[in-house]
Amino acid sequence: MDRAVLGLDIGGTKLAAGVVADGRVLVRGETPTCADEGPDAVLARLLALARRVQAGAPGAEVDRLGVGCAGPLDRRAGLILSPPNLPGWDRFPLVARLAGALSLPVRLENDANAAALAEYRYGAGRGATSLVYLTVSTGIGGGIILDGRLWHGSADAAGEVGHMILLPDGPPCGCGNRGCWEALASGPAIARRARERLETRASRLRVIPAFTAADVARLAAAGDPVAVEVWDEAVGFLAQGIAALVTTLAPERVVLGGGVSRAGDLLFVPLRERVRRHVRLAPAERIPILPAALGADVGILGAAAIALED
Amino acid sequence: MDRAVLGLDIGGTKLAAGVVADGRVLVRGETPTCADEGPDAVLARLLALARRVQAGAPGAEVDRLGVGCAGPLDRRAGLILSPPNLPGWDRFPLVARLAGALSLPVRLENDANAAALAEYRYGAGRGATSLVYLTVSTGIGGGIILDGRLWHGSADAAGEVGHMILLPDGPPCGCGNRGCWEALASGPAIARRARERLETRASRLRVIPAFTAADVARLAAAGDPVAVEVWDEAVGFLAQGIAALVTTLAPERVVLGGGVSRAGDLLFVPLRERVRRHVRLAPAERIPILPAALGADVGILGAAAIALED
Repeated sequence: MDRAVLGLDIGGTKLAAGVVADGRVLVRGETPTCADEGPDAVLARLLALARRVQAGAPGAEVDRLGVGCAGPLDRRAGLILSPPNLPGWDRFPLVARLAGALSLPVRLENDANAAALAEYRYGAGRGATSLVYLTVSTGIGGGIILDGRLWHGSADAAGEVGHMILLPDGPPCGCGNRGCWEALASGPAIARRARERLETRASRLRVIPAFTAADVARLAAAGDPVAVEVWDEAVGFLAQGIAALVTTLAPERVVLGGGVSRAGDLLFVPLRERVRRHVRLAPAERIPILPAALGADVGILGAAAIALED
Repeated sequence: MDRAVLGLDIGGTKLAAGVVADGRVLVRGETPTCADEGPDAVLARLLALARRVQAGAPGAEVDRLGVGCAGPLDRRAGLILSPPNLPGWDRFPLVARLAGALSLPVRLENDANAAALAEYRYGAGRGATSLVYLTVSTGIGGGIILDGRLWHGSADAAGEVGHMILLPDGPPCGCGNRGCWEALASGPAIARRARERLETRASRLRVIPAFTAADVARLAAAGDPVAVEVWDEAVGFLAQGIAALVTTLAPERVVLGGGVSRAGDLLFVPLRERVRRHVRLAPAERIPILPAALGADVGILGAAAIALED
């Protein structure tokens, strides 16, 4: 009988749950969040999902529960603090509600930190003692593992790397500043930078309605001049930010997840070359930049890893 | 009788030594490095200084030796690795030579890390558990304390914060890149940015031969338009870099040393305001940005603190 953990991943569009043992997901399930229905309805749906998933692994002795959730949140108090994609979750006592309903000890963590821990324990970070995990998708988030533990920082505020300012007076960011990393190199930022060029230039991007960063990457590979230019700039900004983190922290590894990282070699080959060029003093050639290894299970595995932390 | 430590600080222009007990310097001494005479001559001068200082504190039982030195160096192997300002120190076995001559156990650390540890143990960082220390002078260096310990990173390469790129395609840096923090906001960078403007604009800086960042700060306070503009930009770049570090690590404190930090309120008042504006997500208002507290003794105290680390 495996000692098992229940992992719950709460996102703005989707809820996922899984029973995890030895770093493997034994049973998984998911359901739409329907965030507009408010926290009580979402919690009811989450509890039903959790129970269904647990029932699917009758032999597993689940003795604890980990939850990854979009921030901001107060992991110690167990509260969710008004995330933009979970309307109505204002100081919502998620941990107390889950613990009461499922009779399990509960650990809470923000989703980027949970993903960082999952990659560290079960994925591309296995065997390292420090890493910087980055998720590049609708935003740029991060989680930092140092000496085998998540670095939370003062008031749990560390890891907001997407809001480093990498281009003074650059494009506006949702946070209120200009030139944040996220405003330069997240998926929507890449698509926006391409769209701006289409006003004056020809490109096959024009015929793709609501194109994304993935389309920009694909057409860059096919030689479309606007896409080549925009993708090249995006890789440059990703390299600039990663180089800043490597120069500061010299982690053993950098692990990249999120939608933009799915561009594969189109991203990683030029990215590694540029980071190496930018980092003259730290031994950048010895710090691998790796794609995240856990795919769609990273949320469930991250939640489980959080439950198992000391 | 106090348990005491000998601290040695090796710089490109000056050698300093002190006997330290309980975080206080009991006796101190210094002598010019005369780096051009090569490592053996410098070592002889350093040993003479060390013995003189020890003789000045006859009651102190010195049982270990700490050394802070300009990097790059290999602290574990005890080697100095060709620092630009110590010509001829090519894999120089400093620790073995000192241990042999003084019959004491020796610990070696780079000067920025030693200063960070000194401020943490005895200065502006006392009582915190994490801090980022920055020295802004001829370059920008840093030391990072996390959970009460220096963070060295992979291959001891962490803390090279002066080479974060904060302005893509900015001015060239000695490291070979462009737009590094150090190329934008170190003392020489500030003076250079002022000098460039004097070609086309009037300023009282013109009558100061070989003016420095301190002159720029002083004339900015007096309302000289070129100085005001250049100082304002320098504060902006310092704020941008500190904000990146705060956003990433959320240390409990940021401590600023080095010549540029001696500008006092002229620096710290606008700097704190700008960092607060740049850091929207981490609780920047709760992370104090403090001037270094140890003054000229920081080198000796840093070396002593290194000797006392576990």
